[in-house]
Amino acid sequence: MAKSMTLLWGSGSPPCWRVMIALEEKKLQGYNSRLLSFDKEEIKSQEVFNINPRGQVPSFKHGDVIVNESYAACFYLESQFKSQGTKLIPDSTEEQALMYQRMFEGLTFYDKLIIFYEYYVPEGERLASAVKRRKEALSTELKLWEGYLHKTGSGSNLAGKSFTLADVVVFPTVATLFRFGLSEKRYPRLGEYYALLRERPSVKASWPPHWLQNTKGQDTLNDV
Amino acid sequence: MAKSMTLLWGSGSPPCWRVMIALEEKKLQGYNSRLLSFDKEEIKSQEVFNINPRGQVPSFKHGDVIVNESYAACFYLESQFKSQGTKLIPDSTEEQALMYQRMFEGLTFYDKLIIFYEYYVPEGERLASAVKRRKEALSTELKLWEGYLHKTGSGSNLAGKSFTLADVVVFPTVATLFRFGLSEKRYPRLGEYYALLRERPSVKASWPPHWLQNTKGQDTLNDV
Repeated sequence: MAKSMTLLWGSGSPPCWRVMIALEEKKLQGYNSRLLSFDKEEIKSQEVFNINPRGQVPSFKHGDVIVNESYAACFYLESQFKSQGTKLIPDSTEEQALMYQRMFEGLTFYDKLIIFYEYYVPEGERLASAVKRRKEALSTELKLWEGYLHKTGSGSNLAGKSFTLADVVVFPTVATLFRFGLSEKRYPRLGEYYALLRERPSVKASWPPHWLQNTKGQDTLNDV
Repeated sequence: MAKSMTLLWGSGSPPCWRVMIALEEKKLQGYNSRLLSFDKEEIKSQEVFNINPRGQVPSFKHGDVIVNESYAACFYLESQFKSQGTKLIPDSTEEQALMYQRMFEGLTFYDKLIIFYEYYVPEGERLASAVKRRKEALSTELKLWEGYLHKTGSGSNLAGKSFTLADVVVFPTVATLFRFGLSEKRYPRLGEYYALLRERPSVKASWPPHWLQNTKGQDTLNDV
């Protein structure tokens, strides 16, 4: 089945990483994996547009079915391969509710990452006050997640005991925070969660290759 | 069952409206409905914070289970009440894939609405060039959706024949566009989709009360 799947992706993109973790968890190794650089030439290439009218990655195709949005692809894979690999949606009402809640809070979390500010905001529109405001919003957001992890307890996944879609979609954001200098001392619960999940086989197998090549991250977020 | 549910919501908020449509479709009328004004006093009240640490609406509770994010609440309701009311996730692989894809593109669509710009961006940071750029991005986005609706054909829902979660979450964005002056002439497919769905009982029953009171909308988007 995996042979009829194609994923176009970029190294270090949290949305791409989500889909890769889901593919690993669902035992779909062997898919046609195309690593693209973020140069305009590759991302805005015909190869991408053939799958994705938005000209962005991830772009994902399974046979004739196209599902490009990262959350959509994760839901799709879980639904199509329910009994294969890790069961990513728990049965219990409480865990399921918490999983959905954290998944969608995870989008707000990702939006607050701030590290892509210069990528999305043209030079003439960048404002120090906006960056400051956004870093404050990120700090508030981080405190929420510290609280959530405190509540679920040490060694827990985001929605409880099981590893779920919430972890699939939120972990890449957490890993990116630490790659960009977030302090594990200031955010110990997130640090612990990061340490726990980075050893998970699906996560290791899909670790961004350029992070492996250059193990030193950046310090953009060390004042948050 | 509906009696053990509480929804805190605001009139005209697309995220609140999503949850209300889902509740209607799943035949959960009779839930405890609390309409709040968007004044800081009501939105940042203890009543909201008791359910939602983010202090925002929708805030949704079912017994002891809390699911505040609008997409999360819609998924939760469909999962918990699968065989009640409208089946909101289709069985066929193709329709399901398209539903997931449109649902998550729907978030990008909503982010591009632009009408909340002044609400989210403090006065000192507002820039004419940013508004212009965002209106252009909205126009590009609208053309994509015109194309999608052209492809599914007249009288169709977003993911095909059936009304699905994609319609539940995206319709409130479409309705808001027209409320704020989008031209049905310039975007005829979206206009047709809007005309079709606004007659749906779940949509009529949950129509924003202040839109009913004051049927005249605004003209913020008439140049898009």
